[in-house]
Amino acid sequence: MTEKIVVVGGVAAGPKAACRAKRLMPQAEVILIDQDSLISYGGCGIPYYVAGDVADESALRSTSFHVLRDEAYFEKYKGVRTLTSTKALAINRQKKSVTVKNLHSGDEEDIDYDKLVLATGSQPYVLPIPGADLEGVFTIANLHKAIEIKDRIAKGMVGKAVVIGGGAIGIEMAEALTDLWGVETSLVEFKDQLLPGIVDWSLAAMLINHMRGSNVDVYLGESASEILGKDGSVVGVRTTKRTLDADLVIMAVGVHAQSQLAKDAGLRVSEKGGIIVNRRMQTSDPDIYAAGDCVKLTNLITGKQFYAPFGSLANKEGRVVGDNLAGIPTTFDGAVGSFIMKAFDVCIGATGLSLEMAKAEGYDADFSLTAPADRAHFYPSQEIITCVMVFDRRTRMVLGVQAFGPMNDNISARINAAAAYLTMGATIEDFANMEMAYAPPFSAAIDTINAAAYVAGNLCDKRMRQISMEDFYDWMADCSSQPDWVVLDVRHEKQAQPFIERYGSELWLSMSDDHLRERYEELPRDKMLIIFCNAGSRSYEIQIFLDSVGFTNNLVLCGGFNVIKRIGADWLPG
Amino acid sequence: MTEKIVVVGGVAAGPKAACRAKRLMPQAEVILIDQDSLISYGGCGIPYYVAGDVADESALRSTSFHVLRDEAYFEKYKGVRTLTSTKALAINRQKKSVTVKNLHSGDEEDIDYDKLVLATGSQPYVLPIPGADLEGVFTIANLHKAIEIKDRIAKGMVGKAVVIGGGAIGIEMAEALTDLWGVETSLVEFKDQLLPGIVDWSLAAMLINHMRGSNVDVYLGESASEILGKDGSVVGVRTTKRTLDADLVIMAVGVHAQSQLAKDAGLRVSEKGGIIVNRRMQTSDPDIYAAGDCVKLTNLITGKQFYAPFGSLANKEGRVVGDNLAGIPTTFDGAVGSFIMKAFDVCIGATGLSLEMAKAEGYDADFSLTAPADRAHFYPSQEIITCVMVFDRRTRMVLGVQAFGPMNDNISARINAAAAYLTMGATIEDFANMEMAYAPPFSAAIDTINAAAYVAGNLCDKRMRQISMEDFYDWMADCSSQPDWVVLDVRHEKQAQPFIERYGSELWLSMSDDHLRERYEELPRDKMLIIFCNAGSRSYEIQIFLDSVGFTNNLVLCGGFNVIKRIGADWLPG
Repeated sequence: MTEKIVVVGGVAAGPKAACRAKRLMPQAEVILIDQDSLISYGGCGIPYYVAGDVADESALRSTSFHVLRDEAYFEKYKGVRTLTSTKALAINRQKKSVTVKNLHSGDEEDIDYDKLVLATGSQPYVLPIPGADLEGVFTIANLHKAIEIKDRIAKGMVGKAVVIGGGAIGIEMAEALTDLWGVETSLVEFKDQLLPGIVDWSLAAMLINHMRGSNVDVYLGESASEILGKDGSVVGVRTTKRTLDADLVIMAVGVHAQSQLAKDAGLRVSEKGGIIVNRRMQTSDPDIYAAGDCVKLTNLITGKQFYAPFGSLANKEGRVVGDNLAGIPTTFDGAVGSFIMKAFDVCIGATGLSLEMAKAEGYDADFSLTAPADRAHFYPSQEIITCVMVFDRRTRMVLGVQAFGPMNDNISARINAAAAYLTMGATIEDFANMEMAYAPPFSAAIDTINAAAYVAGNLCDKRMRQISMEDFYDWMADCSSQPDWVVLDVRHEKQAQPFIERYGSELWLSMSDDHLRERYEELPRDKMLIIFCNAGSRSYEIQIFLDSVGFTNNLVLCGGFNVIKRIGADWLPG
Repeated sequence: MTEKIVVVGGVAAGPKAACRAKRLMPQAEVILIDQDSLISYGGCGIPYYVAGDVADESALRSTSFHVLRDEAYFEKYKGVRTLTSTKALAINRQKKSVTVKNLHSGDEEDIDYDKLVLATGSQPYVLPIPGADLEGVFTIANLHKAIEIKDRIAKGMVGKAVVIGGGAIGIEMAEALTDLWGVETSLVEFKDQLLPGIVDWSLAAMLINHMRGSNVDVYLGESASEILGKDGSVVGVRTTKRTLDADLVIMAVGVHAQSQLAKDAGLRVSEKGGIIVNRRMQTSDPDIYAAGDCVKLTNLITGKQFYAPFGSLANKEGRVVGDNLAGIPTTFDGAVGSFIMKAFDVCIGATGLSLEMAKAEGYDADFSLTAPADRAHFYPSQEIITCVMVFDRRTRMVLGVQAFGPMNDNISARINAAAAYLTMGATIEDFANMEMAYAPPFSAAIDTINAAAYVAGNLCDKRMRQISMEDFYDWMADCSSQPDWVVLDVRHEKQAQPFIERYGSELWLSMSDDHLRERYEELPRDKMLIIFCNAGSRSYEIQIFLDSVGFTNNLVLCGGFNVIKRIGADWLPG
């Protein structure tokens, strides 16, 4: 008897499972079903298609040797029978069949299966606000929407756009609209930072600064309350604070698992809709597998279930399904949630938990903030990477790493390595000794990641006391909030000069580390000294020195001016 | 009583240990000794200083905020008493003292210690051949040598140079001489490949091709037998096969631990001279620590001792010494041996064991060779990375990863992550599911590393049968060696055409995968088909198909034309 496998969902996990199964069992009958006419596309490439970096949508659904991955491709090259515009309506688990409907003809039929794979993906949330159904309002639900958006822009129909949602897709779409097409773009996020839940305050603040400098108007802490229309078409967005004109609105406020089919069939589904699977990607019915954006995964840091709708994971999960369909017992154990994105000229990456998430999970979480050069500081092309390392004070486990730098692969080189260590429950000390391939054109002898762990260790052992960048900004915005604080700028006197001119030495004290060991007696004993340098390392050494001579009322501003320069502020001189 | 710490060796591990100890114990007396006048320099930066990328040698021994790390710096900023031009002659372990000699005055004195740290570094090998002591023959032993070399070039004294040794330093120096100064440079390596023991045949072959294309004459498989001189100065190098003119000779044939001091004091030292330490970097005398290029480390893959003289490890080891001096029980558990280098416009990286090393260690070792795009293939700036993954057939453990690509950080992004996984004994399946942060500007949804593991898994399970690139090149050089082999080129007929014109269809058969499933009956049944495409993935699918229809006499050429294009060959058409 030939095994018959039916796969529902033809974007990422589905085709991967189908093709892998067929390769492993050339005698099996494999059927791939999708309700859409366009399948097997790189959904993460949509912003680059809209931007014009990818000229044609067909590139998103072609192989690297330029063959279009359509129905005929899967039939001919993969031996997978492929039914597009075919919607799976219901699963009959007793009969082991799926009822499908041809969306062109309206005909329904039952397709038997020995094994069924659900790769039904995700669906963008649509905000329940008036005007969400106006013409010109889009979610990034599929390739058709992307084609429509690009078409409108290319036809000159879009002068102004509003993106709702400050997550990765919102930011990427804002870049796509602004950078190549010159559309006047606003981005509205209802939380008070970009990439909420993914990165923490300092990195989000740098990103906002860069977005604004790249001509995107970013509005934080306000939600879209209504989408305004005229003659059925969008003309603007009303937020809780203002009204923005718009010929185009993109709603990118997150996605949720598309699992109604699974739910209706009585399979175990989480509260928020993710299908529950075991490590072999089996659902609660052992003859039904699920993979991709429709499932919940195990978070390898917390051990809890989480939702990680990433194309890269979907492909890996799909391959594990293919293996198991063929009797090869490989497993997909979970993920730590690695993230990376381009935003104009910068790159931002993260893996594991942010400080905020870690605290919400109940960890005794703290963080280090460092801003060293990404390669040997004497090497001509070095640049600053800002790195946040989140750790648990009790267990010394590293919980997450975030990094921000110029747009190249230097963030990937740290985030991927950190992710690998996170999966093994590595401690601060493990990260301190992490082996990063070294030569001056690639890294410093003490890599960014190692330096972040060094600082984390010093903080964890209370050998270092810090003030957070967020608290420092709050204070600079209203210095009267902490009247006994004063900055101790240990950089060269020339670097401190503009700050002293603006703030006076009551608030901004200059004493370079060059002279401080001789002149420390001149420092005020009744003030809390906020030690300030370019990156934080000199400040730390001064903290140790001051402590040793009895000036213990001091804090290090980790990250220092390197971070402040990238966040920006209206209180910065000149 | 104040603790007194003496550190011998002031380049990387020594200063790190000294400064960390002093930070942790501000009351301790810390003395740093070095026989040289120049200390605390980035030795790995020497090729970039010679090349001119780093304008001044002082940049190699300055902090990132441009303070020179000389004796005064360590005294003033670090509280470490620093004696340069001071050679440690002997250790008296009973008295706990070191006899040192001031190389200027000739005075000797004994310095007491409570704890002693040996960071005596490494010494380059000097080939025992005539002429090795001629003027103009250099090893890269220290910064003075680098200054002398650059001085000679800058004065126009060097028209032709010979570099002896095809390891990283030899290659970097060859680039430095050729690229900026236009010196006619030859590189001589006595083994039959560059980077022997670090990368395997295919990657070494790509590197040679790139070096030759960058105007370095590379001679493999010949050793330097004599250095020729005139009036005491070098004029050439005689190898086992030829004579090369040279105004400058750089000997870069490896380094060995400098451990005579330790040996004389009766400390445990390995056969080849590396000081034996435990995980806290303690020698066989618990009051004496050692770190850096003078010690042996544990190889975290084999579990055996190995020699890994890398500046990045030296710094980490030094910090662990500093911790332990202060009673903090951190450990340095070993390394996997990560390696990365720039060579003109390309980057080559490796971690863990090469195939050759793995076999020598007794593993049942095999490898996968893949050549995919480094980012989403539809993204405009993608490039090919060639990746070798070495694995053990019995345990499915990955033993090493090597990669070659254009000069950016895309190799770091893979090698660092792979190194992290190697430390945990990860299997092929772990690497298949390795979480690599994904967005189209950074990687493919299935990253290079994942793809390498996919192929490794298929090979390990004998679902795929391959011919190595080396065997293929051997055959192309002499096709009569395997008279029953024929290439089955499954790329587009147009791509195969030039090969058929050159070799005839007896040797080079074209049948694109587009038609093969209908026309396979035309294939010769009495031949071994070497299936050939751009990267290997289509070839694999064709292998599965051919097997399923009874044509099992076939092998996949992994890496395909993508690899061949980079290795080059005189047998390539046009």
